Amino acid sequence: MDVFDTPTPELQTMPLGLYDLVFYSIVAAGFALFAYFVYSWNSKSEVGVRYRPAVLAGLCIAGVASLSYLVLAIKWDTGYDLVGGVYEPNAEARATLYPRYIDWTVTVPLLTAELLAVCSLAGAKARSLRFSTMTAAFLMILTGFLGSQVLAQGRDVTALVVWGLISTAFYAYLYVALIGAVRSSTSSMSVEAGRSLRNATLVLLGTFGVYPLVYAVPVFVDVTPAWLAGMQVSYSAADVLAKVGFGVLIHKVAKLRTAEDVAAGVDTHPESVWVSSVHQSEAVMPSSQTEVRSTEFTGNTVDAAPVFADHPRRPHEHHETEHLREREHGHSDHARADGVRHGATRTATDRS
Amino acid sequence: MDVFDTPTPELQTMPLGLYDLVFYSIVAAGFALFAYFVYSWNSKSEVGVRYRPAVLAGLCIAGVASLSYLVLAIKWDTGYDLVGGVYEPNAEARATLYPRYIDWTVTVPLLTAELLAVCSLAGAKARSLRFSTMTAAFLMILTGFLGSQVLAQGRDVTALVVWGLISTAFYAYLYVALIGAVRSSTSSMSVEAGRSLRNATLVLLGTFGVYPLVYAVPVFVDVTPAWLAGMQVSYSAADVLAKVGFGVLIHKVAKLRTAEDVAAGVDTHPESVWVSSVHQSEAVMPSSQTEVRSTEFTGNTVDAAPVFADHPRRPHEHHETEHLREREHGHSDHARADGVRHGATRTATDRS
Amino acid sequence: MDVFDTPTPELQTMPLGLYDLVFYSIVAAGFALFAYFVYSWNSKSEVGVRYRPAVLAGLCIAGVASLSYLVLAIKWDTGYDLVGGVYEPNAEARATLYPRYIDWTVTVPLLTAELLAVCSLAGAKARSLRFSTMTAAFLMILTGFLGSQVLAQGRDVTALVVWGLISTAFYAYLYVALIGAVRSSTSSMSVEAGRSLRNATLVLLGTFGVYPLVYAVPVFVDVTPAWLAGMQVSYSAADVLAKVGFGVLIHKVAKLRTAEDVAAGVDTHPESVWVSSVHQSEAVMPSSQTEVRSTEFTGNTVDAAPVFADHPRRPHEHHETEHLREREHGHSDHARADGVRHGATRTATDRS
Amino acid sequence: MDVFDTPTPELQTMPLGLYDLVFYSIVAAGFALFAYFVYSWNSKSEVGVRYRPAVLAGLCIAGVASLSYLVLAIKWDTGYDLVGGVYEPNAEARATLYPRYIDWTVTVPLLTAELLAVCSLAGAKARSLRFSTMTAAFLMILTGFLGSQVLAQGRDVTALVVWGLISTAFYAYLYVALIGAVRSSTSSMSVEAGRSLRNATLVLLGTFGVYPLVYAVPVFVDVTPAWLAGMQVSYSAADVLAKVGFGVLIHKVAKLRTAEDVAAGVDTHPESVWVSSVHQSEAVMPSSQTEVRSTEFTGNTVDAAPVFADHPRRPHEHHETEHLREREHGHSDHARADGVRHGATRTATDRS
Amino acid sequence: MDVFDTPTPELQTMPLGLYDLVFYSIVAAGFALFAYFVYSWNSKSEVGVRYRPAVLAGLCIAGVASLSYLVLAIKWDTGYDLVGGVYEPNAEARATLYPRYIDWTVTVPLLTAELLAVCSLAGAKARSLRFSTMTAAFLMILTGFLGSQVLAQGRDVTALVVWGLISTAFYAYLYVALIGAVRSSTSSMSVEAGRSLRNATLVLLGTFGVYPLVYAVPVFVDVTPAWLAGMQVSYSAADVLAKVGFGVLIHKVAKLRTAEDVAAGVDTHPESVWVSSVHQSEAVMPSSQTEVRSTEFTGNTVDAAPVFADHPRRPHEHHETEHLREREHGHSDHARADGVRHGATRTATDRS
Repeated sequence: MDVFDTPTPELQTMPLGLYDLVFYSIVAAGFALFAYFVYSWNSKSEVGVRYRPAVLAGLCIAGVASLSYLVLAIKWDTGYDLVGGVYEPNAEARATLYPRYIDWTVTVPLLTAELLAVCSLAGAKARSLRFSTMTAAFLMILTGFLGSQVLAQGRDVTALVVWGLISTAFYAYLYVALIGAVRSSTSSMSVEAGRSLRNATLVLLGTFGVYPLVYAVPVFVDVTPAWLAGMQVSYSAADVLAKVGFGVLIHKVAKLRTAEDVAAGVDTHPESVWVSSVHQSEAVMPSSQTEVRSTEFTGNTVDAAPVFADHPRRPHEHHETEHLREREHGHSDHARADGVRHGATRTATDRS
Repeated sequence: MDVFDTPTPELQTMPLGLYDLVFYSIVAAGFALFAYFVYSWNSKSEVGVRYRPAVLAGLCIAGVASLSYLVLAIKWDTGYDLVGGVYEPNAEARATLYPRYIDWTVTVPLLTAELLAVCSLAGAKARSLRFSTMTAAFLMILTGFLGSQVLAQGRDVTALVVWGLISTAFYAYLYVALIGAVRSSTSSMSVEAGRSLRNATLVLLGTFGVYPLVYAVPVFVDVTPAWLAGMQVSYSAADVLAKVGFGVLIHKVAKLRTAEDVAAGVDTHPESVWVSSVHQSEAVMPSSQTEVRSTEFTGNTVDAAPVFADHPRRPHEHHETEHLREREHGHSDHARADGVRHGATRTATDRS
Repeated sequence: MDVFDTPTPELQTMPLGLYDLVFYSIVAAGFALFAYFVYSWNSKSEVGVRYRPAVLAGLCIAGVASLSYLVLAIKWDTGYDLVGGVYEPNAEARATLYPRYIDWTVTVPLLTAELLAVCSLAGAKARSLRFSTMTAAFLMILTGFLGSQVLAQGRDVTALVVWGLISTAFYAYLYVALIGAVRSSTSSMSVEAGRSLRNATLVLLGTFGVYPLVYAVPVFVDVTPAWLAGMQVSYSAADVLAKVGFGVLIHKVAKLRTAEDVAAGVDTHPESVWVSSVHQSEAVMPSSQTEVRSTEFTGNTVDAAPVFADHPRRPHEHHETEHLREREHGHSDHARADGVRHGATRTATDRS
Repeated sequence: MDVFDTPTPELQTMPLGLYDLVFYSIVAAGFALFAYFVYSWNSKSEVGVRYRPAVLAGLCIAGVASLSYLVLAIKWDTGYDLVGGVYEPNAEARATLYPRYIDWTVTVPLLTAELLAVCSLAGAKARSLRFSTMTAAFLMILTGFLGSQVLAQGRDVTALVVWGLISTAFYAYLYVALIGAVRSSTSSMSVEAGRSLRNATLVLLGTFGVYPLVYAVPVFVDVTPAWLAGMQVSYSAADVLAKVGFGVLIHKVAKLRTAEDVAAGVDTHPESVWVSSVHQSEAVMPSSQTEVRSTEFTGNTVDAAPVFADHPRRPHEHHETEHLREREHGHSDHARADGVRHGATRTATDRS
Repeated sequence: MDVFDTPTPELQTMPLGLYDLVFYSIVAAGFALFAYFVYSWNSKSEVGVRYRPAVLAGLCIAGVASLSYLVLAIKWDTGYDLVGGVYEPNAEARATLYPRYIDWTVTVPLLTAELLAVCSLAGAKARSLRFSTMTAAFLMILTGFLGSQVLAQGRDVTALVVWGLISTAFYAYLYVALIGAVRSSTSSMSVEAGRSLRNATLVLLGTFGVYPLVYAVPVFVDVTPAWLAGMQVSYSAADVLAKVGFGVLIHKVAKLRTAEDVAAGVDTHPESVWVSSVHQSEAVMPSSQTEVRSTEFTGNTVDAAPVFADHPRRPHEHHETEHLREREHGHSDHARADGVRHGATRTATDRS
């Protein structure tokens, strides 16, 4: 067993400047996540119920990560004693790095759910992919934690490497599965929404790459105070990018797709949708029960019957895709006419 | 009196890796429960008022369990002192296991209420079953607590066994009563909702089986640090499954049944219902007072009179059941027509 | 002055089992109250604005009581030191009983307000009774506190008895006033609502009787650890019954009365009302301003003018009562017709 | 310089009974304020948007004051050590009185805003009075704080008196300005609303008188434990009266005025308004965009154009006043007719 | 390297009065920010979805700043020990100034977003300016923090000056960019909204000037207790002005612009808009899906198709501007007619 003979990464004696820098990066990341939590909580109604799970996943992620950074901040604050002009670690300092895994255990699976919630997969296929990616994400983090902290207290280089590789295998699956889901989805939404979705995927999978790099630091170098500060700053920045940056892009996709559904008559939404002060769709209230009934009696059928998941909806989605593409290639007048016609005939074609 | 001569289970000297693993499992479970709390709070409007009690029960469960895990995390964090490379328990460590009973005292009765709220029992029968199962659940936990912690401070094997058996008797009642309620309910909902309801019941009653197993550990083995870690990890995992996993399934049943009610004209719901991106029902606003009145004057009676619980509603429910079954056996066009007709004639047949 | 020569009740040396039992009962009661707080917050829209004050009172009660139990739990946790296998009280232990009075000072007046908010008194009469009962409830608690804690530090038996009797006098007034209000109200609501209201009153006044019994314990017996544990468990159980149990019953009365108002056309409510899966009233949206105006122009007057409190409404309420009674004696078809007619003509008769 | 040679008021050695009484009064006041915070948060939709700022001011006041009492309770709890049967102050005890000024610095200006928000001033005049009274209120508290705590650490009798007088001058301005605003407003609302507004003003300005009395205590008497307890109880009671009692009255005025606006057709409100179970106005939804447009085309102009603040609205307000007065002198039938006519013609006369 | 030989600014021995003054200013600012947080949370629905991002930015700012002041208050409270009648700093006192940078790192970028959200830039241009100003604001704070705290622990005068200048360069960019955005926007809104927007900009950029002044204090003077108190009071006052004062003005602009959009038929809003009791716009509900469809069939096209950001909207915005200006130059009757016509024809001209 190839055991480290240096202190564990988190038990460094920190000079004032670096100590303050780490506290700054931890609390700033926590504040950013808290702000995003408050934002998501108060803007969820901007997104239609169809894509609402994306916003709710982002909200839960922000809530959990905020609490996690609270724990990290308290541990960093109390884990070091100012002795002779430097900060020396005490027993609490052991818990200044590994609690990040606890956060990730819950939030990384939710991040994949957030991404998939604005993709175009539906029904059993969506559920199965969501289940497999969330499980892979959970195992990716759990194996990383076991290797770096539990087995031989993270002091065994071999364990660090072996479990790191197992963890990476789950990452590889995630990479392939999510890229695939996104690729097959962008064609069924507007160009703008598709672009934001691709950017969000890049941000997510890109920042996911930061974590193994930082994880590997203790394998390759003797961790110094500067390395520890670098690890903490990198983790904090990556968390903000992967959660807040990614979340803002997903929120935009969800709003654009909500507007597309309203415009296509697929759904109603009681608020108009604006993105960067550009009007995307009108507010449309649902019909009242009286309106629904009178429409039924006059033969202008508005179908309120549930469509069970067993009924394939792909034909319709294909239709919707064509419709959106068409519009974006410049025939906006025609597209609008089509949109109106489509909305009106949807109930007939959609449920056959 | 057959008293233990080993330390109580929770007072083990823990090596670093196991100590961190338990902290990880407690905080991760707490984060998952908190995420579910945030999710339930913000998604309750997805479910119609009829099944809302299920979501509210899940929300209360998540809130209480989050607080409970906060207590457990604090006690685990402060209950052990790092001395010579191992964590030694102090007086606080006594409260790292038994506070789980406090959580369960409140949450297990609520879990049975959550399950029953999406079943098809109504009125006095529902109230009576709810009362008896909630009482049994409460007593199941209370007797377990008394046997394991209060009487002879949980050091008497006989008390542990006797009270464990009494507790198990309540569990048996719960098992029979809940299975019965679910069985009699699935026929009155769609196949998909019924399947999810059965899965939810399996998850709940299955994880309930984990608790007595862990409870019995100190009876059969000398608790070692590894056993203690296993107990804590098992309890944490079981709590997440029984509360979050179960809750997500119940939420789905509630959404599907909401959609069925809207489609059948039994209720309105101001949001459309989507499950895994599959459209289940349109959004339908209630009629306005003016609409209600004008409908009354034109003889097209929309009845706004209350139906008191004393009036049996079984005929209608039976009707609804047939209607749903019919649709699912492939006659979807016919079913939809029936749905419209049913909705229109409901006010006449339903209140006679 | 007849002064106690034993320790004050709260300063007992507690064996492990009893200490844990008290912690269990305090935290379990706190969790139940917190769950009820979360429930009330998220279910308030189930009740119409007319009876909303009842739900808001319950919500405030639950919030305050949750905080109070947080204080009690912290004091109990920190107020005893584990020395030689038993828990010995320290200075903090002084505050493990009397903070209950602080909670009651705020919550008991609110409980009377909660009860009165679903009774049928209105206007000046309601305000006057609410003021006198809230004042009596406040003085009942304040005098109890002064006698048991402030005067001679609660060590003077005479003070305990004298102030206990003064406090009891306020209780007697409350008893008479609340019973009277409930009696005069049940006739103006449905049988089911009336039954729940009577049950709620029994629960409230019944549990109120527990408090003086526990208060009197130190007068009659030397308080032992078992007595103290009994006092704490009794207070906790009584608080849960008087706040949560009572509140759930009042919530049901408020929902039933809301449904009755909607059915009678007295008010609108944007959600349907369901109690134990039984449908009580349809959802009815308010008319829009345009609808209101066009109705006015066509002579089908919908009166939007305010009715000032000075205008007696008793005739109408009497009418409503008869209407409800009639329906419940089996003439449901007739009652419905009457309901429609009543709803339509209300604006003419009601505001004359 | 005439410096005190006795301990500062807050540094008294307190006997048990008085110590508990102060803790009781601080926590009870904090609980009452917290209950009012929860109440305001959940009842804000009862009041129309026009008077909503009053409710929001009350909500912010309650939130800030709750936090302030949390600080006071913690300081009182930790600021005294139980030594030999009495509570002796430690360094923390210095912060058991002056943090009240911090609360008041924020809440007293908000109290004047709360009062003005239900008065009848509008536009630039309202903004200017709001600004001057909020500034005066801020300076009233700031100067009191400087005199009693900062300058010579509050140990200089002259500073106490001089700054007390300066503070009183601002109080005098507030008194005159607020009385004036209320007097000029009551004529434009119903008798009942006006009466409640006058009561609210009395409560506010009356309790404001308590503060200088308590402030002056150390000038005239040697502060004893009983005096300190009296000061703390008085401040706590005054805070509850001035914030909760006042707020409940303002809430009632806001509800009554909301009902008057709905009845007069000046505004819509999606909930009916009930005060003490008396029905004040129907719920009226806004017209839909389609309704607005079709009304426009048929010449029955509903004006949706904004009225900028520069346009004087007094003629209309005068009209509204007469309308309300008229109704209250018994001509209710006529008043209703007038109300309808007024509502219908408002858009024509109001925006000219 | 020109290193300070005096204590760092935050490590002063403070006399009682100044110590209390700083505590007062920190907690009062924290209370004001918390009140603003509560206010924003509960008033967000007053602003239409188009300008909602401004309110959400303000809400997040208030939340983060409240937490930051909580940290500052705790550090100030625990960072000084009362020894011999003065407060002497301990190790905690190091964190009584620099945590302000953490708050600013998150809130200053959000402040620029809040300002831009009520300006008239839209689409790609808005996104690009928002990105560059938020980045500049972030770097302005980060470089300030590095210079004053991290590099040579803020003890090197040269570093303080050099990094201060770099930070100032970002400030200069912000100044120019924001002034430009505001200037180009005021012409497209009403005079009143434009005036408030200009005031808000002045408040923001003005208070931004306070920070470098305070930052430079240690460069030019030996920091004394009075200077430290002055720095803390100045920072606290500037934070309240720049966040609460600025936010209230932006909230007003957002409300006025919402009212303008409703009046011009550009958007609906379910609440009427009142500013200082002056009525700005009627409440208008969105059309229901049935209304939308029937309008479509009758040729009175209400277009619900999304307008993608790529389509330039400037013509329309220009039109809107003229429309508003016209109205404000006194032709209110004409303007209203124009407004109606504009609203009716918008769907035709707007989407071409």
